[in-house]
Amino acid sequence: MPERKRIIVIGGSAAGPKAAAKARRLDENAEIVIIQKAPDLSMASCGYPYYVGGVFDDRNMLICTPTGEVRDPKFYLKAKGIVARTETEALRIDRQAKTLLIRDLKSGAEETLAYDKLIIATGALPKKPPIPGVELDGISTLQSMGDADYLRDIRDGRQITKAAVIGGGLIGIETCEALQLAGIDITVIEMLPQLLTFLDWELAKLVENHVRAKGANVITDNGIAEFLGENGRLTAVKLQNGTELPCELAVVAIGVTPNVRLAQEAGLEVGATGGLLVNEYMQTSDPNIYAAGDCVEALNLITGKKVHAPYGDLANLQGRAAGENAVLGNAVTFPGTIQTGICKVFDFAAGSTGLSEKAARAAGLTEIETVINASPDKPGFMEGKLLVSKLVVEKSSGRILGAQCVGPGDVSKQLAIWAMAIKARLGVEEMINADLPYAPPFSLAIDHSIATAHLMQNKLKGRMRGISCVEVKKKLDAGERLFILDNRAPEEFDQMRLGIGERLMPLGALRGRLNEMPADKNAEIICFCKISLRGYEAARVLEGHGWKNVKVMEGGVMAWPYPREK
Amino acid sequence: MPERKRIIVIGGSAAGPKAAAKARRLDENAEIVIIQKAPDLSMASCGYPYYVGGVFDDRNMLICTPTGEVRDPKFYLKAKGIVARTETEALRIDRQAKTLLIRDLKSGAEETLAYDKLIIATGALPKKPPIPGVELDGISTLQSMGDADYLRDIRDGRQITKAAVIGGGLIGIETCEALQLAGIDITVIEMLPQLLTFLDWELAKLVENHVRAKGANVITDNGIAEFLGENGRLTAVKLQNGTELPCELAVVAIGVTPNVRLAQEAGLEVGATGGLLVNEYMQTSDPNIYAAGDCVEALNLITGKKVHAPYGDLANLQGRAAGENAVLGNAVTFPGTIQTGICKVFDFAAGSTGLSEKAARAAGLTEIETVINASPDKPGFMEGKLLVSKLVVEKSSGRILGAQCVGPGDVSKQLAIWAMAIKARLGVEEMINADLPYAPPFSLAIDHSIATAHLMQNKLKGRMRGISCVEVKKKLDAGERLFILDNRAPEEFDQMRLGIGERLMPLGALRGRLNEMPADKNAEIICFCKISLRGYEAARVLEGHGWKNVKVMEGGVMAWPYPREK
Ligand SMILES: Cc1cc2nc3c(=O)[nH]c(=O)nc-3n(C[C@H](O)[C@H](O)[C@H](O)COP(=O)(O)OP(=O)(O)OC[C@H]3O[C@@H](n4cnc5c(N)ncnc54)[C@H](O)[C@@H]3O)c2cc1C
Ligand SMILES: Cc1cc2nc3c(=O)[nH]c(=O)nc-3n(C[C@H](O)[C@H](O)[C@H](O)COP(=O)(O)OP(=O)(O)OC[C@H]3O[C@@H](n4cnc5c(N)ncnc54)[C@H](O)[C@@H]3O)c2cc1C
Ligand SMILES: CC(C)(COP(=O)(O)OP(=O)(O)OC[C@H]1O[C@@H](n2cnc3c(N)ncnc32)[C@H](O)[C@@H]1OP(=O)(O)O)[C@@H](O)C(=O)NCCC(=O)NCCS
Ligand SMILES: CC(C)(COP(=O)(O)OP(=O)(O)OC[C@H]1O[C@@H](n2cnc3c(N)ncnc32)[C@H](O)[C@@H]1OP(=O)(O)O)[C@@H](O)C(=O)NCCC(=O)NCCS
Ligand SMILES: [Ca+2]
Ligand SMILES: [Ca+2]
Repeated sequence: MPERKRIIVIGGSAAGPKAAAKARRLDENAEIVIIQKAPDLSMASCGYPYYVGGVFDDRNMLICTPTGEVRDPKFYLKAKGIVARTETEALRIDRQAKTLLIRDLKSGAEETLAYDKLIIATGALPKKPPIPGVELDGISTLQSMGDADYLRDIRDGRQITKAAVIGGGLIGIETCEALQLAGIDITVIEMLPQLLTFLDWELAKLVENHVRAKGANVITDNGIAEFLGENGRLTAVKLQNGTELPCELAVVAIGVTPNVRLAQEAGLEVGATGGLLVNEYMQTSDPNIYAAGDCVEALNLITGKKVHAPYGDLANLQGRAAGENAVLGNAVTFPGTIQTGICKVFDFAAGSTGLSEKAARAAGLTEIETVINASPDKPGFMEGKLLVSKLVVEKSSGRILGAQCVGPGDVSKQLAIWAMAIKARLGVEEMINADLPYAPPFSLAIDHSIATAHLMQNKLKGRMRGISCVEVKKKLDAGERLFILDNRAPEEFDQMRLGIGERLMPLGALRGRLNEMPADKNAEIICFCKISLRGYEAARVLEGHGWKNVKVMEGGVMAWPYPREK
Repeated sequence: MPERKRIIVIGGSAAGPKAAAKARRLDENAEIVIIQKAPDLSMASCGYPYYVGGVFDDRNMLICTPTGEVRDPKFYLKAKGIVARTETEALRIDRQAKTLLIRDLKSGAEETLAYDKLIIATGALPKKPPIPGVELDGISTLQSMGDADYLRDIRDGRQITKAAVIGGGLIGIETCEALQLAGIDITVIEMLPQLLTFLDWELAKLVENHVRAKGANVITDNGIAEFLGENGRLTAVKLQNGTELPCELAVVAIGVTPNVRLAQEAGLEVGATGGLLVNEYMQTSDPNIYAAGDCVEALNLITGKKVHAPYGDLANLQGRAAGENAVLGNAVTFPGTIQTGICKVFDFAAGSTGLSEKAARAAGLTEIETVINASPDKPGFMEGKLLVSKLVVEKSSGRILGAQCVGPGDVSKQLAIWAMAIKARLGVEEMINADLPYAPPFSLAIDHSIATAHLMQNKLKGRMRGISCVEVKKKLDAGERLFILDNRAPEEFDQMRLGIGERLMPLGALRGRLNEMPADKNAEIICFCKISLRGYEAARVLEGHGWKNVKVMEGGVMAWPYPREK
């Protein structure tokens, strides 16, 4: 090995630069080169939707330091002592010779560079649907700076009036909001029954309702069959059920695939998820080659299974570990992910950490309990905003497996709290008396997360029998005659109500009207209110008076995802 | 014991009602009575400052349910099946007879009630300074609904122009903001060298600077000696150093004492903190008597020592445990507190969880490491706002002992994250790759908390030698000639600078100007920048070139608590 260690990093967006920068800080003497195919470096891809939507206008903000310096090759050279070669593609890795063949995309010139350690950070590529018309003008993704420029131009041009977003995931939804902000008429098309698959259906449906309320159209359960065009330009999308939607723009956001061609051609192992196989040191099957970011697969710390988790925060953290290990030998680890993610959806946020109920069941975890909680994030006098959460725990141990949260309230803090609880492998009992920062401008006296744990505790102890809105709806649709109590006040009932055959039975009146309850103490009674706090109290009253099959419809009116009578 | 268990709760604000409500849910049959001295019930005391400040105008919002029902005796009776007797004082507990003597404060009538279980939730009383003039008109506390009414009237009256707030703790600062909002000229007077003693000095000073910037006066290191008056009305306060400050209103907020007279007279044990002694079941030294809230002392889970932790969230959680145990026998525990608290300070928030450096040292924990981090909470393009955090860990194990955070950014989430980490007894290494909810509207790609852990890791591994602003200032004041590098860009230096003899040495220029560095490789060099990220990188460069005593001034310009040249 020569005196100056030669480190080459392939990929110059998040994981690559982070690895290079960390390597530099640990070895001032090393020769560090970033090979970047794209014209820019250090792109905050996660910011594209906000640039496209006009939240800010200066493109440089996507590629600059917090103090406004653009991270271009000159910056990398001067501030970091790193040679960053943009518009340069890595073509072939020769693992025997420990060399990398690169091509300057401007001049076409090829060159072979020698490395001691190589770090692969080639990211992910957007999936394209294998359907007719996909090559038409007017079809884009939102994955690269070029895509962002293209869509921003469309926004600024104010020519296009109708667009379709194909895919209702995080990027699809963010793109929907961005284009909607630009005054474009949007339809989101999702093949699955719901948006944002990291959520369980009933929470995703609340998000969908919000997206619709903001004026965007949403079509679920319906994939795209064909792009239709005239003179090479998109004119409409055709759905699998035959519907044609006229539009001049389609943004495809149906997911990403790890970009591993280069690595695979060099014989590096790829896992079942399609991501590069790395150990906890971010080392590939070749000890001289590390990898990080969207091109690798990671361990899900809850299931122990490998997943593809294409998140910007993880790309940075993995890059940091890879950079250190490439310089110092395997010193630090990236143990894995609990797949915590969040996205803004107009005035809502929606996110998940750990396993959804769906994901838990898919992973074979069936002995689980779930609960839905709804409450404001802060007191009414501080203008608290709604949060709806769903918690998933292991039944036997109470161990927290996952939490989801949606709503206009402070979703991000809720998810951060649960992410920490899951990371630390806490059980519900350890959340019951959590000591969080309480003051009225920031939370309720019993924080929403703690209340959610209380609800779960009540369920696990058999003090609250829950029933989900989905189950109630199923029963109704099956024609079951249900005995349902709405435990709110008459004024509330007048203003807004489900209209599912419920009887108004204000909590405060219940003890005096027990004679109106079913004579059969085993009869099923379903209680709810605005958030089902009073519904729960009503259920406790009825149970106290001998009724044995009283259920609380979790989350109440606020979590009801179906149309209401009023 | 009679068939219907008789439970009496003394105190009707937070802990008491919570205990009563929980008891009711677990025993529909019990006889549950709340004895409340004050005229109101269920007061959200923590909301008083916002009512006084005019954030909202409807007094009922302080005492109502989330859906707007006032929690008065009628509400308690109907919704909770609880008899709540307001303006009724508990006078004497007869533990032998298991009775409570009460007095109706309106009629003066006394009555003796029998109990099976008693729950004491008498809260805390504001401390009053034992100085002349304390009985003058125009001196108040902000502890009761009556106080809130009094101060709100003053706000609405717009007569008073000058006020003093005695005490710079949480309630003092919140009161300062409230009165300042009312257009009153405010001076906060604090005997100690800093505001908000749950913070270490250097963070408290940043808060103080902000309070001053908002137009309030702050006097520290100076207690109050006397209240001066004319015709029985306050006209000025006199400080220990002789200064007289004219004012028509003084709000005393110098802390609270557990209200334990009643319990003490009944022979219940009181701890060294002055709070009622309870075990983890919230049971006093009499097995038939439980206690909760501001009247008890609690275990600090980090030091293992008892503390008085008068927090509204804990009052509720303790009440919930006490209520359950009073009905079911000792079933659930309240294990203790890490003393997490937060308060809004104009456009800042400030809070702490676990131990400050000061508290850790006072508890005999000397083998600790600390670090200060400054960064925006979100990317610049999403209008990120500054956060300044200080982390305290055990040196040997890396175990997280405490975290403080101040600034205009999302302080509350930072504290929630650290509170969970401390609760779960995590070490710094477990925070390095925390998987938090990242998207640009909510955080940086590497969240501020994770970056703070990275900094701490760097210090523990000897890769960053930190020096605090306080130490630098001390050296300067002692006349030491320091070699200080400001690693920002020239434009930044022109706009704002410390003026402590630093040389401008932009990070990007450093590698080319090493000849300007001290010839002595052991010379002390201090680097900093706006937040000391570039300062840290500069230090790595210098260390890479052989300098052995390079320090990073933690938090940089943003954490510098002293006046700047510019
Ligand atoms: C619109 C959008 C919104 C997002 N929002 C979020 C969010 O809110 N939260 C979140 O956590 N994540 C989000 N992400 C994901 C996040 O941006 C990625 O996880 C992150 O960018 C991955 O970084 P990376 O460095 O691994 O790969 P990439 O960012 O994909 O970068 C890989 C780079 O490698 C280069 N490259 C590829 N092959 C070669 C080659 N052969 N030679 C040279 N260079 C090559 C490419 O030019 C590319 O720039 C979002 C992504 C997008 C697109
Ligand atoms: C202005 C202010 C701001 C605050 N801000 C925050 C904050 O942001 N975050 C936070 O966590 N905490 C905050 N707190 C603290 C929080 O309000 C208290 O911790 C909480 O109210 C304690 O509840 P408690 O029920 O134990 O006692 P208290 O609220 O003090 O209630 C005790 C009740 O007992 C009654 N009582 C006393 N003696 C008798 C008797 N002999 N007979 C009958 N009744 C009796 C009194 O009438 C009183 O209403 C704040 C407090 C104040 C005053
Ligand atoms: C920024 C980037 C170039 C990485 O470079 P970097 O030099 O590691 O930059 P960072 O700002 O993350 O941190 C620099 C160092 O300063 C440290 N630091 C941060 N704040 C500090 C402070 N206040 N004081 C001292 N040190 C600080 C960090 O811990 C880090 O050091 P370490 O990794 O050795 O612990 C790379 O992440 C990138 O290109 N990002 C932009 C794109 C992106 O992240 N996209 C995905 C999300 S949209
Ligand atoms: C509100 C108060 C009366 C307590 O009464 P409470 O009936 O326990 O009220 P809460 O709203 O806290 O909760 C009621 C129950 O509903 C549960 N609940 C909350 N949200 C729910 C939901 N969406 N679905 C089902 N149950 C829910 C709670 O967990 C609790 O049950 P549990 O304790 O048996 O687990 C008492 O705390 C009080 O007076 N507070 C006001 C003053 C105050 O707190 N001051 C200090 C801070 S400023
Ligand atoms: Ca994440
Ligand atoms: Ca707290």
